[in-house]
Parts: sequence; structure tokens; C-alpha cells
Amino acid sequence: MNPKDCTMPVNLKPLDPTLLHPVAGLRIGTAMAGVRKANRRDLVVVALDEGAAVAAVFTQNRFCAAPVQIGQQHLAARSDMRALVINTGNANAGTGADGLLRARQVCDAAAALMGCHAQQVLPFSTGVIMETLPADRIVAGLPAALQALKADGWADAAHGIMTTDTLPKAASRQLTIGGRTVTVTGIAKGAGMIRPNMATMLGFVATDAVIAPALLHNLVRDAADQSFNRITIDGDTSTNDSFVLIATQRAGHAAIDTLDSAAGRALREAVVAVAQQLAQAIVRDGEGATKFITVQVQGGRDEAECRLVAYAIAHSPLVKTAFFASDPNLGRILAAVGYAGIADLDQGLIELHLDDVHVVTRGGRHTAYREEDGQRVMQQSEIGVRVQLGRGAAETTVWTCDLSHDYVTINADYRS
Amino acid sequence: MNPKDCTMPVNLKPLDPTLLHPVAGLRIGTAMAGVRKANRRDLVVVALDEGAAVAAVFTQNRFCAAPVQIGQQHLAARSDMRALVINTGNANAGTGADGLLRARQVCDAAAALMGCHAQQVLPFSTGVIMETLPADRIVAGLPAALQALKADGWADAAHGIMTTDTLPKAASRQLTIGGRTVTVTGIAKGAGMIRPNMATMLGFVATDAVIAPALLHNLVRDAADQSFNRITIDGDTSTNDSFVLIATQRAGHAAIDTLDSAAGRALREAVVAVAQQLAQAIVRDGEGATKFITVQVQGGRDEAECRLVAYAIAHSPLVKTAFFASDPNLGRILAAVGYAGIADLDQGLIELHLDDVHVVTRGGRHTAYREEDGQRVMQQSEIGVRVQLGRGAAETTVWTCDLSHDYVTINADYRS
Repeated sequence: MNPKDCTMPVNLKPLDPTLLHPVAGLRIGTAMAGVRKANRRDLVVVALDEGAAVAAVFTQNRFCAAPVQIGQQHLAARSDMRALVINTGNANAGTGADGLLRARQVCDAAAALMGCHAQQVLPFSTGVIMETLPADRIVAGLPAALQALKADGWADAAHGIMTTDTLPKAASRQLTIGGRTVTVTGIAKGAGMIRPNMATMLGFVATDAVIAPALLHNLVRDAADQSFNRITIDGDTSTNDSFVLIATQRAGHAAIDTLDSAAGRALREAVVAVAQQLAQAIVRDGEGATKFITVQVQGGRDEAECRLVAYAIAHSPLVKTAFFASDPNLGRILAAVGYAGIADLDQGLIELHLDDVHVVTRGGRHTAYREEDGQRVMQQSEIGVRVQLGRGAAETTVWTCDLSHDYVTINADYRS
Repeated sequence: MNPKDCTMPVNLKPLDPTLLHPVAGLRIGTAMAGVRKANRRDLVVVALDEGAAVAAVFTQNRFCAAPVQIGQQHLAARSDMRALVINTGNANAGTGADGLLRARQVCDAAAALMGCHAQQVLPFSTGVIMETLPADRIVAGLPAALQALKADGWADAAHGIMTTDTLPKAASRQLTIGGRTVTVTGIAKGAGMIRPNMATMLGFVATDAVIAPALLHNLVRDAADQSFNRITIDGDTSTNDSFVLIATQRAGHAAIDTLDSAAGRALREAVVAVAQQLAQAIVRDGEGATKFITVQVQGGRDEAECRLVAYAIAHSPLVKTAFFASDPNLGRILAAVGYAGIADLDQGLIELHLDDVHVVTRGGRHTAYREEDGQRVMQQSEIGVRVQLGRGAAETTVWTCDLSHDYVTINADYRS
């Protein structure tokens, strides 16, 4: 065992603010509101110029937080959002009717200051569950955040939404559509209570692309399915997960009215790439993570059963502790394949590779497999697991991390 | 945090062999076969006199071990079992066609020594997955085990089936049916890769009751549902889980031909009680466990949805680490309730109690709830979680333990 220093995520670099391209039509301001701790940037406001389109997907947790409920109501009521107000330090979840009032109080205050309707404000909260949101302190912090609004506020915002994250997470890229430069920039936070549907607690991606608002809803779902819905850290689905995609419509190219056009495909590819980079960054910075694991399941009848198997492997505490220990105790992977829930699985058809090492053939240990080959791969900081089910042509990929002492330490001490 | 010494299970007493009543018609012998380590009692033979009835439930893992597959075949082929052969140190799982041959080799050898048919022998294995079973060493150990056969071998057997268990697990009780004393005695082992369907890796309960063999199949399923199928440690379903119920038919009372009779109910109650005691002992000795948690979910529309919620709570790494830390971070329980999978759950109806402390009412923090009350309960070694769903009259109970540093240590070092 050679666990990494607990403050180091797996192959995730510190943020370079100069690599984050601003998105025209969108400004970001941060402030210290003292939500949970003093002298901590814990309030972020994203201000949108008129004309921006916003689409979002939210946690499927039935105990979804008050801001998730309010955000869904606002998105259902209006299409002309003007602001996102995000606080860390308190999730405003498990707070009952009082939590809804407090989330509305924040929206009302932001709307009054910005001269828009409260329904044009989307609230987001992350942090401890079942504590009363200090809405007064957030409201008191809003003027400072609004005063700080700037086009290049992405790095500040990436810092401002962190909870147990050890590093801020952001991604940015540019592409050309119709001769115009189009930017896609996003931020996200983890780092525990992470499992698909949704997988990140908070993710925000913006583009200045010109795109029909109706398409944005397809694009946000598609991007989530290719990114945040493919990661898991501990299998706990958060109460607050939200992924928001903003299109400010400012890039000046001809509007994209189908995702099947060249421009539509190029934009989709860029948004998915940014979302995947953010999602993988969350796993790399997973609580206590020392290994980044890519689980690929092939040969399923459909993608759904491939996902069942991939998540059974990715959620198994026994598999995850074996990765932590760099111990090629790979029978634990077979056990997870077996209990994933495919009723008519034929274990005699299963193949297992660890990176390039062929471990299992026809459901049993490959005669050429040597423990030291498994050991070699297990010691890497990035490991690929590939399972072949032998049932069909479908496949899927998910990303996860190991389960370490630091995960227990972090979550046993989170509130203290 | 005040974690227990890692060698101490939660309120589980060392075995007192004098409390284990022998079961007429059944003898047990153990031996050191050197399956994985030398000088370790790792082979157990249970010899049944003619006339015993045997029923079993096995893991639902599709990667079920070779002995599970062979055992199912033998039980399907014949009703007159004469022996159980159990080894620890090697699970003979993930071993493909070769593993089936080796399990059969053990049955053949036992049958030859005992003068019965190989199909009258049930093989069981537990230990490391995906290693070749050293069948030759097991076969070589059989004569010693057979020579050691004795009626009061239960305590030796409880020792002989242990893997990462820190204490042997056994339970025994007697009842009177038709004026005759009837005995129910059983043993089990854990202690990781434990989740329902089945939950124990190995459990064996025997009674000398006289009961129609057909009823034994109902009774073994019923007892499993009330015991081993209600516990979880890490959510990993083993490849080898087996629960066997033996009725030697020797107690001399009138045969039980329905479980709805007074005698049938009394026997059922005793078998369930022994199975529950064994199942709870597995949780108390769960890998790294420092707390014994009873999760009760009430007010569901049916038991299935109560189980969904109970297991979501019991499997959540975040909930389990909070128990380990004695931290009343109870919002994590609400989050688990929310993602358990009840699509139309109304969070506004949820009530949560921690023992006698009313924590949540109508989906939000109870105004009378004080952190120190939650703290007091969280510091206990035995904790009750009670969730009221407000949807119906169904309820269920499951038992689990916390997730500690020792769980990670044990599973990171299991093979070394």
C-alpha cells in the first residue's frame, strides 16, 4: 500500500485561470457571505444578459433540496433566466417547508437587486444537509457579489462552489462555427455523495453559441448522460445535484436549429468534452481517491445491462478497497459482475481484462495470467477494467475511484 | 471518534460450547487440510444418518461458485443427503470448468470414504475467489475429519468455517413438541461480502424435529427471509452464500405436516430465532464494525418498498461513516431515503427517529430536535433508525453495521 497524500487528487492539475475563456453575455461575481465559515468565498452569482437560454437536469433524489424544487418551478414557468445564485456551506435539503421559503427569499432579493422577476433567478445550494439555510446572510452578501461581476470570473466561481473538493474544477474550449469563434466553458464541484442521476452536486457549463432553446434541453440531457451520469464515487445520490447549460446566443453565427448539422455536432462534441472533463475531474478529486478507474463493459444485449454491471463493479466496496491496496484480488470484480442483476448471465462467457492483461477467460482464471501482471497494473494511478459479457454488441463506460482510509476520515469528520 | 479495538465485534460474546445442544442423527468432524494456511482447522464434514431431510437456499450471484452449482445439482437429483463437506481458505469461485471438476473430486472422495453416492454429498467453499481449489489437499484431509466425527462438534465447526470472522458464530435452542425435546442448533460465518440474497456466506442449521421434507423447503426460505436476507455489511453479494437447513427426523414426536399447526409454528419460531441470532452475529462481527444498527422502515405501501429504503440507508457509505464517527449528520439518512427508488415518494410526509429521538417531521428538521440528543444516541454501540414513509401500513427491519477504517484495512490486506 502506498496511498497518496490525502490532499492530492489523482492526476488533476491546479486550475490555470488563463485557460478559461470568458463567455460573452455572462458575468460572474463572488462574495464571502459567511454561510458556514467566515472568510470563505461561498456565494456565486452568474448574471445573464437578456436573450440567454438555460436548460438543466436535476437530481432524481426524491428528497431533492429546496433550491432544486424552486429551480424546477422557475424553469417550468419562464424561459428568460437572468441569474444563478449559488451558495456553498449549506445544502438547504431536508429542511421542509421552511427551506422552500428561504430559497425563495434569496431569489426575491437577487431579483430586486437585479431588476428582474424572482422566477428569472435559479437558486443552487451545496453543503451540509438538514441545517437551516442562513438566507439573511446570503441576501446580505448579494450586493458584494453583484458588484464583483466580471466576464472572467470563472476561476473565482470554481473556487466559490467547492465543499470537500481539494481543487477547483473547470474546463474550457473553443471551436469555430460559421467562421465565428464559439466558446464553451464550465465549472463543477464534487466530491462525495456522487453517483449517477445526477452525479455531480453542481455543474455549470455556458456557451455563447447561437442555438434554438428547445435544442438546449436535448443537449443538456445528452451531455449529462455522457459525463456526469457516468461517474460514481460512493454510490450516494445527492439531494442537490444540478447540471445547467447556458447558451448566451452571442457568438454571431447562424443559429443552430438541429444537432445533426455539422455545426450542431461540433457544438455537441465541445459541450460533451467539457462536461466529461469536469465529470472526470470530480472523480479524480473524489473523497480520498488515490486511483482513477475506467470501467468498460462490452458485449451486453443493451446499454442498460452494461451499466448495471459497470456500476456494480464501480460501487463495490470490496473492489474499491482492492484498488486502494493495489491488490489484484480480481475475483471481487467477478463477484460484482455476478450480482449486478442480469438474471440469465452465463458466467462461462465472461472475459476480464485489466488494461492489457487478460485475467479471466470463459469465466475462469486465464492460464497465462500471472499475479505479477495484475499487480503491475493495480499499482498504476489510472487503471482500466474491461469486462466482456458475451451476450451482444452494446457497451458502456463509467469512471470511478478507489475507497481509501481517507474516504472514511473525510466523511467521519466532515462536519467537525 | 472512539473506534473500538479492531479485534472486538459489537456485543458478541465468545462462544460457549456447552450451550450448543447436539442434534441427534448428525455428527461433525473437523481437520487441518492446509487449504490456504497450515495448522488451521479449515475442513469440516457434517455426516447425516439415513433419513435426514435437507433444504437449502443459495446465493443469487450469477457468478456463483462451483460448489454452489454442484450443490444445487445434487439437491435437485436426490433427497437423501448424507454429508456436507465445507472448506475455508478458498471459495472455488471464478474458477470456470476446472472448479466444477475439483468440487466434484471432493464429493467423489467423500462419498467413497463414507460409502454413499457422490450426489449425496453437498460441497461448500469459502475464502479467496479466483484461486484454484487445492482439491488434493482437501481429499487428503477427509479421513482425519471423518475420524473426528462426534455429536458435539458444533463449536469446532463454527471455528472451522471462519474466514475474516473474529469470533465463531453459533446458536442453539430447544423446544418441546408432543412431549419431546426438540433441538435447533446452527453455525454461520461472515464477515465481508455480505448483503441479502443471500447475506451470509455460509449458514448451517440443523434440527432433530420430525417434519415432512417438503415443508423444509418453505421453512428454509422463510427463515432466510427473516434473518440472512435482512442483513448487510458492505452490499457485496457473495459468490458462495449458502444457507442449509437439516432435519434429522430423530426427535420422536408426531411428524409435522403443516407449518400452521402449533408444533409447526413452534418449530418455525425456533428456527427463525436461531437464524436471526446467527445473522445478527455476522453483522456484529462485520469487517471493522463498531456499531450494530437496526434500520426499521414503516408506513410503506408494501414490504418491497420498505426494503428498498432500508437497504439504501444500510448500504450508504456516507450514512455508515457517520455512524462510525458518532456524528449525527442525519441528513445523509434523508438523502438515502430520497434515492432509494420510490418514484412518487412525498418528502413532506417523512418522519425520522433515532431511537427515541424525533429528528425529522414532515420532511424537515423537528423544531424540538437538539443536536446533543442525536449525538447521545449516535455514541451508543447499538442504534435504532426508524423511518416513517407515510404511504401505507407495510414495514420491514434490516440490520447493518458502520463503515470504519478497519473495514478498509481488512479488505485492503485480506490476501496478504
